[in-house]
Amino acid sequence: MADNYKLTPRSEDFNDWYNTLVLRADLADYGPVRGTMIVKPYGWALWENIQQALDGRFKATGVQNAGFPMFIPMSFLQKEAKHVEGFAPELAVVTHGGGQELGEPIVVRPTSETMIGHAYAKWIQSHRDLPLLINLWNSVVRWELRTKLFLRTLEFYWQEGHTAHATAVEADERTRMMLDVYTDFAVNEAAVPVIPGEKSEMERFAGADQTFTIEAMMGDGKALQSATSHNLGQNFAKAFDIEYLDENNARQHCWTTSWGLSARFIGAIIMTHGDDNGLILPPRLAPYQVVIVPIYRKDAEKTAVLEATHRIQQELAAVGVRVKVDDRDNLTPGYKFNDWELRGVPARIEIGPRDIAKHSVALARRDVPGREGKQFISQGGLAQTVQTLLDDIQASLLARAAQFRDQNTRDAANYDEFKTAVKTGFARVWWAGDNDNETRVKEETKATIRCFPLAQPGGAGTCFYTGKPAHKIAIFGRAY
Amino acid sequence: MADNYKLTPRSEDFNDWYNTLVLRADLADYGPVRGTMIVKPYGWALWENIQQALDGRFKATGVQNAGFPMFIPMSFLQKEAKHVEGFAPELAVVTHGGGQELGEPIVVRPTSETMIGHAYAKWIQSHRDLPLLINLWNSVVRWELRTKLFLRTLEFYWQEGHTAHATAVEADERTRMMLDVYTDFAVNEAAVPVIPGEKSEMERFAGADQTFTIEAMMGDGKALQSATSHNLGQNFAKAFDIEYLDENNARQHCWTTSWGLSARFIGAIIMTHGDDNGLILPPRLAPYQVVIVPIYRKDAEKTAVLEATHRIQQELAAVGVRVKVDDRDNLTPGYKFNDWELRGVPARIEIGPRDIAKHSVALARRDVPGREGKQFISQGGLAQTVQTLLDDIQASLLARAAQFRDQNTRDAANYDEFKTAVKTGFARVWWAGDNDNETRVKEETKATIRCFPLAQPGGAGTCFYTGKPAHKIAIFGRAY
Repeated sequence: MADNYKLTPRSEDFNDWYNTLVLRADLADYGPVRGTMIVKPYGWALWENIQQALDGRFKATGVQNAGFPMFIPMSFLQKEAKHVEGFAPELAVVTHGGGQELGEPIVVRPTSETMIGHAYAKWIQSHRDLPLLINLWNSVVRWELRTKLFLRTLEFYWQEGHTAHATAVEADERTRMMLDVYTDFAVNEAAVPVIPGEKSEMERFAGADQTFTIEAMMGDGKALQSATSHNLGQNFAKAFDIEYLDENNARQHCWTTSWGLSARFIGAIIMTHGDDNGLILPPRLAPYQVVIVPIYRKDAEKTAVLEATHRIQQELAAVGVRVKVDDRDNLTPGYKFNDWELRGVPARIEIGPRDIAKHSVALARRDVPGREGKQFISQGGLAQTVQTLLDDIQASLLARAAQFRDQNTRDAANYDEFKTAVKTGFARVWWAGDNDNETRVKEETKATIRCFPLAQPGGAGTCFYTGKPAHKIAIFGRAY
Repeated sequence: MADNYKLTPRSEDFNDWYNTLVLRADLADYGPVRGTMIVKPYGWALWENIQQALDGRFKATGVQNAGFPMFIPMSFLQKEAKHVEGFAPELAVVTHGGGQELGEPIVVRPTSETMIGHAYAKWIQSHRDLPLLINLWNSVVRWELRTKLFLRTLEFYWQEGHTAHATAVEADERTRMMLDVYTDFAVNEAAVPVIPGEKSEMERFAGADQTFTIEAMMGDGKALQSATSHNLGQNFAKAFDIEYLDENNARQHCWTTSWGLSARFIGAIIMTHGDDNGLILPPRLAPYQVVIVPIYRKDAEKTAVLEATHRIQQELAAVGVRVKVDDRDNLTPGYKFNDWELRGVPARIEIGPRDIAKHSVALARRDVPGREGKQFISQGGLAQTVQTLLDDIQASLLARAAQFRDQNTRDAANYDEFKTAVKTGFARVWWAGDNDNETRVKEETKATIRCFPLAQPGGAGTCFYTGKPAHKIAIFGRAY
């Protein structure tokens, strides 16, 4: 339950605002093993809504879910050279089981490409078995030292999709298709405007030929990598012998992809939409879209107010609105208003004795504070009014976030302009640098290439850093 | 894909029938770490339907989902004496993380009572925080030596519910309520007739005051414990200091419960309904309720047949029937019939050129083999006919399983009758034995007390084993 005092303003200490908000809004708590997280019911309900929105989109593209073991033989990791190099420092290792020391150590999956490689090699025989399109909803473990709730935890919840194809073209199409799915989800469900693009070689997934990403700008101007889609080429197919017989009975290696979005996306939602009063959840994903706070002082008023409250609750639920009634009798209405603002419920209905007399209610929208966001409306046609309001809030959140992102994205023609831009947001630049240049920019400014946006202007320009002719625009930013 | 040869008949080798069927029906495969399991898409779709049916029932009782970490400090396990005694031999232990040896070893949860105890102690302050009703969908690890797909694997999928209450009465009510939920699910969704009852002291969960169970009879007469609900009394509340301030501001320990159903239930479905031709899935849980097999020889026939196939597919999907069209062009209809019988799809529609001419289809039910189960019906009103058939199959499966269970449950007045009964099924007996008696019966016959059914006849009888006056009926059986 929220204490009734203010959060640290975002402008003062964004980090403290975030950490306090996650705990006070009852989204999550710290687990007893350092770096682990407990996702509390309110946070989990948000994750379930994210899962549902994504799962339907995955299945519409022919993907099926499955369940793979969390335990991977250590030797599997070592089969793909870059993969083990990337993940070895982050592994959790099981050395004892059932009271015995194990012959071969087992790792808790940091991601499942190797396990998938093992299984696909066994399952795929013929071109008729392709494409194979599987997704896993699970948790994975990466031994992170600097953790932050939702953004970076030792164990985290996510989905990992793994596909195998007969041709390079199909693998490329699938990689981009899933990036489109993520973009569609982010924009249309979470109201998080994202920039879809390709990662630089340095920021690629360990073992991928190409990594695509959707990048979002948080309320402090920093970037959050919100989902990734990898074209693994034939790297894992060769490491694990994922082969098929083609129509001419010739043996071929498959082409594989993997793609994932994690509960880190909850962090993206918090930091994109939240304000100094707390969360603002996009209506499509909010566990509760509307909270009703009944207001009464005397017992004589209580019966009529609660009767109207429950009637309205049912009217809204009947049209599919997710409603919460806050009938806690030990708290004041003012406390409840603050509490549900903190927890980001998109709309609030207040109903008291005078409203009943006038057959009206007060309807407040979370994204517009104070009187400006509050209207007094008739109870007649309330369900329709609420649905329209929720759609409006959803659209407004997206527009506001896009405007903020655009205002804080600056074209930079030289290093000075670049440094100014990445202090408060993104720099949009022509880039022709190599890995060394990229490393130096990071050391000097903490900014990295977030992506080369898929939407390129075309033509050519001058690299802001090397002065060389450049053919690609890059987005740089400081990242979470 | 199924090979087109017969399974080992169940009467010949039930164990081989089961293991072969799980693999050939594409439900699951073995993982690379001994004892682990990969749940393949068809098996996972069945599990998703089970999850959905249970999840709605849980939420209807006020339960909310959450996500708890898989890693538990070793010291937590040791706080409840019986709990650690029960689980210590089965633990998987993480000793290294991020390249370092850990100060305190971490266990991968075998179940989460201790982690929950830690969190609830922190979260619960006042009687207003109670009851706290949380469920987790996750996987847990128990280092089993003799594993069997779905029934007993090193890592397994399940849900674990954990509740905390102010009074012993509420905890008792919740324990029994969740047993009722499991019974309702088993009977009405899975068509698995179960016997709800209480476990003997010896078979209790490690740390529980009372354990309730639903017990099902498999096709070989053996028992499968299909879900359990535990009244944990104040054992975990005292071990973890889960306390609340009551209305008089006095500090009290909570009363807690836990309850779980795992993917082992898929084993119960397979072994309750399956026959020598393969799976028979209950319509309410089947990933595909109907498969349509288009039949044609010439290209001239193909267009019309596929047109009718897809029209019927849409008609069925429109009323919520889960339909699969098998349009693989490299397999014969006969092969497909066998394949989908093996995979247990409840109903099959065949449509060929002659059917199109007559505006009819052939409709075959999986639970009645051969011609007897096949009817030729008009395409008019097909959706309605199919829905009625699916309801009929659902009811028939339950009735058949209940009849089998009843025919193989025998009252036994003495040890000879008992031994005969448990050779092929359950023995229903008066019981007044102690733990030593129970142990000896198990050693001599392999049969254990499956439960003391909640439905007791009342009155008294003579214990079949000790000859003492007895007041309780017990069900004995050999168990998986």
